[in-house]
This record gives sequence, C-alpha cells and structure tokens, in this order.
Amino acid sequence: MLTTNLDRMDEKLKAFSKFGALEGGGITRLSLSAPALEARAEFKRRAEALGMAVASDDIANMYATYPGSEEGLPRIVMGSHMDSVRSGGNYDGIYGVLSSLEVAETIITEGIKLRHPITVMVWTNEEGARFEPAMMSSGIVMEKFTKESMLGVVETGGTVTFGEALAASGWVGGEANRLNSRDYCAYFEPHIEQGPVLEEEGLDIGVVAGVVGMVNYDIILEGVSSHAGTTPQSYRKDALRAASKTILDLWDKLGALAGDLVFTTGEITCRPNIHTVVPNYVKFSLDARHQDMNVIAKVVDVIENLPKDVYGCKLSYEEHWGRKTIQFNDKLLGYVEGAAKGLGYSNKRMYSGAGHDAQYVSELLPSVMIFIPSKDGLSHTVVEYSSPEQTWHGANVLLNALIEADKNL
Amino acid sequence: MLTTNLDRMDEKLKAFSKFGALEGGGITRLSLSAPALEARAEFKRRAEALGMAVASDDIANMYATYPGSEEGLPRIVMGSHMDSVRSGGNYDGIYGVLSSLEVAETIITEGIKLRHPITVMVWTNEEGARFEPAMMSSGIVMEKFTKESMLGVVETGGTVTFGEALAASGWVGGEANRLNSRDYCAYFEPHIEQGPVLEEEGLDIGVVAGVVGMVNYDIILEGVSSHAGTTPQSYRKDALRAASKTILDLWDKLGALAGDLVFTTGEITCRPNIHTVVPNYVKFSLDARHQDMNVIAKVVDVIENLPKDVYGCKLSYEEHWGRKTIQFNDKLLGYVEGAAKGLGYSNKRMYSGAGHDAQYVSELLPSVMIFIPSKDGLSHTVVEYSSPEQTWHGANVLLNALIEADKNL
Repeated sequence: MLTTNLDRMDEKLKAFSKFGALEGGGITRLSLSAPALEARAEFKRRAEALGMAVASDDIANMYATYPGSEEGLPRIVMGSHMDSVRSGGNYDGIYGVLSSLEVAETIITEGIKLRHPITVMVWTNEEGARFEPAMMSSGIVMEKFTKESMLGVVETGGTVTFGEALAASGWVGGEANRLNSRDYCAYFEPHIEQGPVLEEEGLDIGVVAGVVGMVNYDIILEGVSSHAGTTPQSYRKDALRAASKTILDLWDKLGALAGDLVFTTGEITCRPNIHTVVPNYVKFSLDARHQDMNVIAKVVDVIENLPKDVYGCKLSYEEHWGRKTIQFNDKLLGYVEGAAKGLGYSNKRMYSGAGHDAQYVSELLPSVMIFIPSKDGLSHTVVEYSSPEQTWHGANVLLNALIEADKNL
Repeated sequence: MLTTNLDRMDEKLKAFSKFGALEGGGITRLSLSAPALEARAEFKRRAEALGMAVASDDIANMYATYPGSEEGLPRIVMGSHMDSVRSGGNYDGIYGVLSSLEVAETIITEGIKLRHPITVMVWTNEEGARFEPAMMSSGIVMEKFTKESMLGVVETGGTVTFGEALAASGWVGGEANRLNSRDYCAYFEPHIEQGPVLEEEGLDIGVVAGVVGMVNYDIILEGVSSHAGTTPQSYRKDALRAASKTILDLWDKLGALAGDLVFTTGEITCRPNIHTVVPNYVKFSLDARHQDMNVIAKVVDVIENLPKDVYGCKLSYEEHWGRKTIQFNDKLLGYVEGAAKGLGYSNKRMYSGAGHDAQYVSELLPSVMIFIPSKDGLSHTVVEYSSPEQTWHGANVLLNALIEADKNL
C-alpha cells in the first residue's frame, strides 16, 4: 500500500499552528479573522506550489484542484475547515484540510496517476464560534439556511456581520464554484474523533458510518421562592431540588435505553440564584444522540412521560432542534475500511456524535469521514492532541481510499 | 388590657407606603435614597407632633424620645428599619417602626403614665440592598464592623459610597447619641415573620426566643469537560450530575437531623454551561440554620463526611461565615408572652430564621422580637402582606409588654 510522508504531515500541522497561536499552546482562529486569513493565504501558497488551481465560491469556501488523467470526469473532493473555537486546538478541522493536502502532495510529487481530478477543500465557518450557526457554509450550499439570512448574522460579542467579514476577506468568488453534484462525485472528510473511544479501545482508525441523530430539550422546573431562614423544609417547593431529582432520573431512565446512547445536561439556569432564597425556577438542557432513530424515539418518550410534579414543582419541557441520523455512503465506507485493513491499521465502524460539514454534503454527494484518535477524547481545547503517527495513519487511509474510489467511480 | 388604634395603625402603614411606591404595588426604598429621606422626614414630623424629641447619631440612626415620669431612669427602646430591598413590600422593617410609633401615640394621647422614657428607633440600612452588608448600622454600633470600613462601601450597581450618602442625607448627628447600655434598658423589635409558620398554624403572634444559628458553605464538584456527542456515558465525569446527587443526598442526610432544621441550596454555578459540553465544574451554596447549635454541629459533620468522589468527580467545600444562635432576653420574652395571652391572642415561642438588628442589639441590651403572620410566608416581594388586624395585634402586644417592662425594669 502507498503511504504519505509522516514528517511532511507533521510539518504541515506545526506550520499552521502558528496562525492564531495562543501563549502556552492552542489557537483562537475564528472564521475570517486575521489569523484565519493568514492560514488561507498559506494554504493557497502551498497548493499553488504543488501546481493546483485555487478557486473560491461566493461564501469563500476554497477549492484547490489538480487535474486527472481522463477528460470529463467529475472531481473527488476531500477536506474540512480551518477555523477554530475560542481557545481551541491544532487538530479539529485543520487536520482534515492538511491531511487532504498531504494526500494531494503525495499524489502529485510521486506522480500517482488518477483518472479523476482531485480537490482539496476548505469550508468557511464550520465552528460557528464567531458567526452562528455551526456548519454555516455547507448549510448554505445544501440550502439548510438562506445565504441572505446568514450574511446578516452579527459576530458573537461584536458588531461585524458575516457579510461584511466575507466582503473584507478578499475570498469571495463565483457562486458557480460552489460544491455541486455535476462537477464532483465523492467527498472525504478526515477528522479527529473528539471522543475517547478509539484511544480507549486502542484503535488506529474510525470508519465513520454516519452522524448520529439527536434531540435537544429544555426541561423546566417551577417552584416557589421563599426565605432560606424562615421556610420549613416541608413547605418548600424548591426548583433546584426538583431539577436535581429530574437529572438523576434521566440518567436512570435514558441509561437503560441503550448502552451507546449519549445524553448531556450541560447548561443550567437557576432563579433567583441567591444563596438565601429557595429557587423558584430552574431550566436545564438535555441533548441526546444515537445512530438508531428508534432509540431517539424512546428518549422522546421518556421526556414526555417525566412526572409533571416533582417535589411540588411543575415540570414542563420545550423541544428545540433535532436531526435525523445521517448515513454515509456504503461504497466509500468500504474503500476506507479496505484501506485501513490493507495498511494493517486496527479500526472499527462508528458514528460521529458531533456534527460535521460531511453531514450536509452527504445529501449532495457520496460522502464518508475518517476518524483518528483524540488524546483523552478532548477537543475544543488548547490541549487537543493526536500524535504524528496517528495523523499520518489517517492520511494514509485517505490516500488509499481515494485511489480505490478513483478506480471504481 | 389596653389596645392601640386599629385604624390609626393601618393609616400609618398606608401613608408610608407612598415613599418609594412602585406602580402595581410594593416599594423600592433603598437606604438613604430620596424616598427613604422622605420617609425619615415624615417620621420626624409625626413624632414631633406627638411631642417626642427626635435625634440622630453619627450613622443616621433616628431616636424619637418621650420622657417618663421618674427622673434618671434609662429608656425603653422599640423600633426597626424603614429601608427596603429592590421591589420590596410595605411591611418588612417599616412595620416595626410604625407599630412602635403607634404604641407611643397611644401612650402619649391616652396619657398612660410610664416610669421610663420611651424611644422609637429607626435603624439605617438594615437590608444592605444598597450598601452591603445587611444590618450595617447595628453592626457598627455593636462593633461587628468598623465605621471606617463601612463609610467606604460603594452602593451596589452605582458609585456613591455609604459615607457620601450619609453626609448628603442631613441626618448625621453625634456619636454620643448612639444606642448604649447606660441610657437604654430594653429593646423591642416587632416584625413580620417572613415565613409561613404563624399563618399555617393559625397563630396571631410569634414570641421570638432568638435568632437561629447558621452555617454557610460552598460545595464544589470538579469533573472533566467533554463533548456531548462523542463521549460515552461511562467515560463521563459530569459535575452537574455529581452536584445533583449531592443536593439530594443533603436533603436525605440533613432532613434526618431535626424536623425544624432549615437548609437551602439557593445558588448554583455551572461551567462551561454550554448545552453541548459535559460540565466540569459545579459550585452550589448551602445555608443551614437551627436554634440548637448541637444540630448545627451535626450539619457540619454531614458536610465534612460527604463522599469525596461522586460519579468520578472530586467533591470539596469552602466554609463561609456562620453565626451562633442568639437567645433573646427571658424576662422580655415573658412580658411579650404574657401580653399575648392577656389579649387572648394565640401565640407560640419560635426562633427567627432571618437576621435582624435585634440580634446585634441583644449583645448590648435585653432584647426581644414580636412576629406577626406574613401572608403565604412571603417577604422581600411587592406582594408581602399582613392584614390590618394582624398589624394591630402586634402593636397591642408591644404596648402591653412595654407597660409590663416599664413596671419591672
């Protein structure tokens, strides 16, 4: 099996870690910010040095393309994003772009003949950390959001709109350059796992079968505020006590549904939140994700059947957005799995619990993702880490899966 | 038994409810604010109209005094405060001042001869809503805080210091006018209960035996942040789950210590508090109060013996301030109880769960409090309410207890 170059892969990650670098490690490289524009310029410089043609579309997504040997075939595209969250790491997103670039460099410099053109792609504003929502530009391309509404989005904590940042970036190209199903035939997205499974199970590669379905709720407990010193316990309707009971009940009931269901109560609001006053209002979030939508339906059932009175407090809930499970392309999954096996890398099929641009792209093109391990399962933090070998393994799998796709598509 | 005048008592409360009145009911009458100064002027006008001499001390506490029949006897003092919290009610504090004024008016206008001079007192800044802490001036007089440090306290949400507000008030008098144990021999403080016990038990009067002892803790759970979608439940160290478990454990363990122990987890902080991230840090407050310091010692024991590991999260705690139980004066308690019985008012001995100026005064003078019922146990809210009959009952008890004290002290 062919391989990419380990040192070159590592050099790329180190080189790009300068753009938005924080003292002590990690980066803040918000979409279309000055460091993000430096990273784009460096990407263009490197791609053009390899003889690739760099274009961008009307929402500044970047496409670096190298021709194939057969006239008229659609492109195979691979990539991810280069923006980060605030105090993020050097792998989430950028690894997908740079492993794709390393694969292109290997193909070009080693003279590997492919029938299809190949494109390395950079998505604008995947994180949504500066301009909400996440996966904004793949969402625009796949018509999840209108471009018009997105242009008006104001940056979090500031005054600049997405439209203004876009115009100032120098990266606005033609709408005709957008990813489409006429000029492209397959999409690969390498990414760090952002979870502990591969590391804990000692595996090299995650063959990502899809993105799990999810539901989001706010659960609300309403009691009565009263004075901490003068209200006997038996008279209290304490919304925080009721919320605590409900959180533990959810762990019991949801935990019994499926061993691999994930659910999170990450955000809590308490009113009046004064230490001498019994809380009269507590709201907490519930996020639940599973690949099997039947399990998600059971989660909904649990929520709908929560007791409506908890220690004298009224329980209610609000359903927010959800998504169905996304299934990636079987053929591409086979190529990724075959490449991992051929390279002798331990692997397993798994679902992504996090959202990725690939989930939107999968509605347009056959798509697949490749996961590499995340140290301690951590991401969106300055200590995010995958070893040089792990990043190289992922690039090698991509290279061989791409070659297999090139033969068969 | 003698009684005060029901209509006159009610008129006083209605008249003072104008100072700081909010649309729709209730008041905001922060200490030394414009409406608080209007209330002071009205208090002075009414006291002087009764022939009382009005003085103030160096921290603007007010003293309206009427002479007794025997030369050289110390004064009996009664009163409370006129400041309120933001969006407070027409009873907390002001009821104690106005019932005392009604008692003085009854004594003066009906020509009841007392041996001791009587003083109706107004404490500056009891609530601490504008200048922290609460019970500031009784605390200064009783040397809980230094006057110097208090003068520098800046108002919550503003720039004016307590010292500046004091100087601008026009109420700064001599330090020699402060409450002291040479010129005064007993202190009565009528107040609304601020809790539901009297109303629930159908009682007219609370004979307040003291102020409960209390302890305050912050309890901290430290786990590990991880991604809501990618971290299997079994790998999680979820600080909010651990805090929920600890809150329910505290209800079990503290609830078993004594039926009349009150404890409150009123304030909670969760980090990072994002719905897609497992919380790594949760801190919540615990406030526990009981009249028996042995029970408080058992509370401390429960806290110290909480499990140090809860669902993989590290539990720690920080002790904040506490106070020992304050016992009011037995003789005065007897006079209050005797007055209630003589008037045919149902009553019981009880402890105050809330702090009051009387708790500091009790270190200087024999002190006691008289509670009247609070509708639905509510205070510090615009709907705070006690009926005209209830406010009148409290004034009648004060009148007769005062007469008894005058005979015996």
